[in-house]
Amino acid sequence: MNNIAIAIHGGAGTILKEDMTDELYQRYYDGLQKALNDGMNILTSGGSCVDAVEAAVVSLEDNPLFNAGRGAVFNYEGKHEMDACIMDGRTLNAGAVCGVSNVRNPVKLAREIMKEGRYVLLSGKGAEDFARQCRQQFEEDSYFADELRYKQWQEAKKANRTQLDHTGKKFGTVGAVARDAIGNLAAATSTGGLTNKQFGRIGDTPIVGAGTYANMLCAISCTGEGEFFLRAVTAYDVACLMNYKGLSLHDACNTVILEKMVQLGGEGGLIAVDSAGNTEMIFNSAGMYRACADVNGKLEIKIYKND
Amino acid sequence: MNNIAIAIHGGAGTILKEDMTDELYQRYYDGLQKALNDGMNILTSGGSCVDAVEAAVVSLEDNPLFNAGRGAVFNYEGKHEMDACIMDGRTLNAGAVCGVSNVRNPVKLAREIMKEGRYVLLSGKGAEDFARQCRQQFEEDSYFADELRYKQWQEAKKANRTQLDHTGKKFGTVGAVARDAIGNLAAATSTGGLTNKQFGRIGDTPIVGAGTYANMLCAISCTGEGEFFLRAVTAYDVACLMNYKGLSLHDACNTVILEKMVQLGGEGGLIAVDSAGNTEMIFNSAGMYRACADVNGKLEIKIYKND
Repeated sequence: MNNIAIAIHGGAGTILKEDMTDELYQRYYDGLQKALNDGMNILTSGGSCVDAVEAAVVSLEDNPLFNAGRGAVFNYEGKHEMDACIMDGRTLNAGAVCGVSNVRNPVKLAREIMKEGRYVLLSGKGAEDFARQCRQQFEEDSYFADELRYKQWQEAKKANRTQLDHTGKKFGTVGAVARDAIGNLAAATSTGGLTNKQFGRIGDTPIVGAGTYANMLCAISCTGEGEFFLRAVTAYDVACLMNYKGLSLHDACNTVILEKMVQLGGEGGLIAVDSAGNTEMIFNSAGMYRACADVNGKLEIKIYKND
Repeated sequence: MNNIAIAIHGGAGTILKEDMTDELYQRYYDGLQKALNDGMNILTSGGSCVDAVEAAVVSLEDNPLFNAGRGAVFNYEGKHEMDACIMDGRTLNAGAVCGVSNVRNPVKLAREIMKEGRYVLLSGKGAEDFARQCRQQFEEDSYFADELRYKQWQEAKKANRTQLDHTGKKFGTVGAVARDAIGNLAAATSTGGLTNKQFGRIGDTPIVGAGTYANMLCAISCTGEGEFFLRAVTAYDVACLMNYKGLSLHDACNTVILEKMVQLGGEGGLIAVDSAGNTEMIFNSAGMYRACADVNGKLEIKIYKND
């Protein structure tokens, strides 16, 4: 049971104390804690890192506070189009979906794609056909229709802009990374994308190497301005800095988010874990919903930069 | 005009002399030569590497011999769903589309997305809406309907299998990389995907870092079993081996295709160019439609391994 560790995130961006009520803060805190526990319970009972990151992301997808699954934002047509990815660091197997609607848990669908093994990335209606074949749970549009999200969409529509999650510059995405008892690593990420998004836009979340990556050295899940993370191949960059340059997880994550991403002009962050069970939660924005825990007693649940 | 260079590919796989007639060989050869010239003419008249790779890929997309644009294979529903990506190594700007139908030149659409700058990756119907907004040329289904491709689809359908391009294990994709007179690099890739493909499957072609990548050190375009290239983040891996480990372009490409890809069990290859104008065309399959040229007189147009 040595070195078991997990980290999760619920999105990054302009998350400021002055915009938050005590009651809302508590709800976010509770949501993060529940997701962390759902993942950690699997790890401490000897479960695999893949099961743990799936469980943690399902918990966040089912929570309407986070822009993924149930809480997915409205796109331009008033629909909910979701992306997700999961990767097993031991086998380098991965599964991902983009632009799927009405699937209750996109991360579970990604897991089924990984398990089936023939494909890595499925999109849109075709991915929904696959979801029906593997008996994924579907939900009516109303399941995803949150009042706050609807208001955000109406405002974004009126102003004719694509709006990031909530007010201000926030990137609603959820993710988890874990190291299990036998030293394997996994990562998973899920998102509802941008409010009022058009043109079937796909961000970094479902892309292996950009928003999500895991191998034997590290597991990474990102959140931020997806276009910058796509261009920077952010998640795999962390792995390469460790593998080819010998950097520690901490130094690799700092280089990628606090130096290279800032230089490129992109905002966001990532969570990461290495094979020794070290966790990192690094971001260049005002805040990131985040939490991590390990079997040695480490436990952090944080929202603002200086929490 | 020093160190101008270009390389192109038209797919890799089980391309064997015994399956080829002299007449068909000549048509492939001519098609590669024309695409190479279309790109090289831009470079030698002082044009940019981005213009050159776009022109070379357009030439290959317009040629029904290659599985991209006009020659795109039939998917499960008898439609043509295409993916493409283009990347500018100087700015790290990129544009890409996946799952688009009826767009004559997906690489031109990818270029428009890069130029507009707001998005990187657009998909399906949404990408087609964007294409109409930027006045891309559309074609009827019949434009893409090649008799050979139709026969391949009917056979694949009958056998209920997803078939790689042509008979045997062939990966029809086209791509180009170039180094222009002022030392900038660019890459572009375009594909019609797998015959009889289902579920909105997306391969590595439109993914920055997997099938396509360019920075100031190198530009890469891949072709092969897309799922393996996605999981290996192949194109960016070449760049990282050069940047973080100090490998030459040749050694980085060999490591990625002849060692790591073989170990993972994937088949295919890539073309690459570095800032000094060195070109590489490396593959682990029986053949790859490929060509390269530079201003110092290098000119190769090849199909089989031992051409």
